[in-house]
Amino acid sequence: MSLVVVGSIAFDTVRTPFGERERMLGGSAVHFSLAASFFTDVRVVGPVGEDFGDSEYSALTERGVNTDDIEQVDGGKTFFWQGHYDFDLNTAHTDDTQLGVFGEFQPKLSDASKQADALFLANIQPDLQREIRRQCPEAKLAGLDSMNLWIETARDSLAGAISDVDLVLMNDAELRMFTKKANLVQAARAVREMGPRMVVAKQGEYGAALLTEDGFFALPGFPLEEVLDPTGAGDSFAGGFLGYLDAHAGSDLGEDVLRRAMTYGSVMASFNVQEFGTERVRRLTHDEINQRFDEFKQMTHFEAVPLEPRVVG
Amino acid sequence: MSLVVVGSIAFDTVRTPFGERERMLGGSAVHFSLAASFFTDVRVVGPVGEDFGDSEYSALTERGVNTDDIEQVDGGKTFFWQGHYDFDLNTAHTDDTQLGVFGEFQPKLSDASKQADALFLANIQPDLQREIRRQCPEAKLAGLDSMNLWIETARDSLAGAISDVDLVLMNDAELRMFTKKANLVQAARAVREMGPRMVVAKQGEYGAALLTEDGFFALPGFPLEEVLDPTGAGDSFAGGFLGYLDAHAGSDLGEDVLRRAMTYGSVMASFNVQEFGTERVRRLTHDEINQRFDEFKQMTHFEAVPLEPRVVG
Repeated sequence: MSLVVVGSIAFDTVRTPFGERERMLGGSAVHFSLAASFFTDVRVVGPVGEDFGDSEYSALTERGVNTDDIEQVDGGKTFFWQGHYDFDLNTAHTDDTQLGVFGEFQPKLSDASKQADALFLANIQPDLQREIRRQCPEAKLAGLDSMNLWIETARDSLAGAISDVDLVLMNDAELRMFTKKANLVQAARAVREMGPRMVVAKQGEYGAALLTEDGFFALPGFPLEEVLDPTGAGDSFAGGFLGYLDAHAGSDLGEDVLRRAMTYGSVMASFNVQEFGTERVRRLTHDEINQRFDEFKQMTHFEAVPLEPRVVG
Repeated sequence: MSLVVVGSIAFDTVRTPFGERERMLGGSAVHFSLAASFFTDVRVVGPVGEDFGDSEYSALTERGVNTDDIEQVDGGKTFFWQGHYDFDLNTAHTDDTQLGVFGEFQPKLSDASKQADALFLANIQPDLQREIRRQCPEAKLAGLDSMNLWIETARDSLAGAISDVDLVLMNDAELRMFTKKANLVQAARAVREMGPRMVVAKQGEYGAALLTEDGFFALPGFPLEEVLDPTGAGDSFAGGFLGYLDAHAGSDLGEDVLRRAMTYGSVMASFNVQEFGTERVRRLTHDEINQRFDEFKQMTHFEAVPLEPRVVG
């Protein structure tokens, strides 16, 4: 089992109603790989600049993430994102984006990464996603995320990238936007007709839904009284989801495994948002993960008692 | 067991992307009582005009709903609502409202209704809700719904009405608006601190959540590929929920009963939206209800398999 993720490695400056942090380690590939590291062997692929130092590498290697495919560009600057959230923490407002080395990123995967069993193409330009997919022909499970920017500016490329993967994991609003279908069941069907056999709709605080040929499964978001910073929640979800699936590579990914993967994704996302950036996930323990998994089960479980007919009229 | 509902009895003219109906039987008390009639004895309270005829009464009495407390006003006109939905079926756009007899409504409950075990105050002016609550001192379970109009124009009255009931069942956006808390867990806590021990947050297509002192339970919306008309879905939910609870009046309303009530509420709401107005619920069968209950269980069920620790770093 081995899982490769390609995406942004970044410094994030984030302000929410509950605090502010400057130049935290962030980016989709970072959040994904930290979450996935609790489940499987992870390799992270992406470019960084000279400003990416030992403490940033350590944050990944301490969790066992392989960083051999991080390409450090001489004289370059690491991707930088600055944003804020208002009291409605569902919407990120971007204040500044500096692509840095990400603007010229041409992925060159090592042989080890090309042999990966599973691949996640985090939210990057879809032609890059397709190129990386081509470099990993062995991956029996490939997924991608995307965003409104690519739906608007690179729709055909994104359609091509989607046709190359097994799993599409996107915000439900973006699934609707991409398929031009307001109904989520119809939107997921339209995506599946392009190739992927699984669609995961991320629904923010409402949780996430899995739509496959075989059925529908949904979990609410974990009911947190305090959300400090939602940045990276979707990537932590994807990391938990694909990390768990990769740990079961070789076995049949039946509905029961997929549902547990959804739950682990939800668990990782829920921890992600409880503190800023990667702070909470970096010091997570397996016991905490198992405990929250059980809480998810507890808060969604109910028993059927058949209803007796009533005679009326 | 007996359940009284007070709310609007109406004619609705509705247009959605999938069709149009003129002057259908509608109104919150009608949708509620039809749904609740599958679970318990229901009495409906509200005013109608001379235009409310035998076929409208029959729609209720055929489902065993007691209409003795429907007050028919000589020379009056039944409440009329006209609205439409765009492709995003989550938002109702009101095109016309004619209060008719509802503008002068002064509830006078019969002795039978005053003895009710359970009471639902559908979305009407909160001073009327308080007056009706006073007329039903025997009700061991009282719930209410409300809307943004009353939060904006009659906030103190609504706060008083809420303090008089056991259950608040509102859209989550309105719970946030009323409590001025963006976080749903905090919003529900603020409502519970006013008196009610149960808060149900209706979340449209995302389903519904139950927040009590003891915990959190949530169900997704039923994944329908076709939603024809969402009008009345929230009232059908409330009817299923309170109908099931009233059928268990006298027993302890523990978490297991509450969760089944949430599921029956979700079942009734999901049927409500599959056709226009009351069309689908009126010809529902108990077998169909039981089957969809099982489908809800199937689509939310998963088994835990404890995660083994991984040694990393």
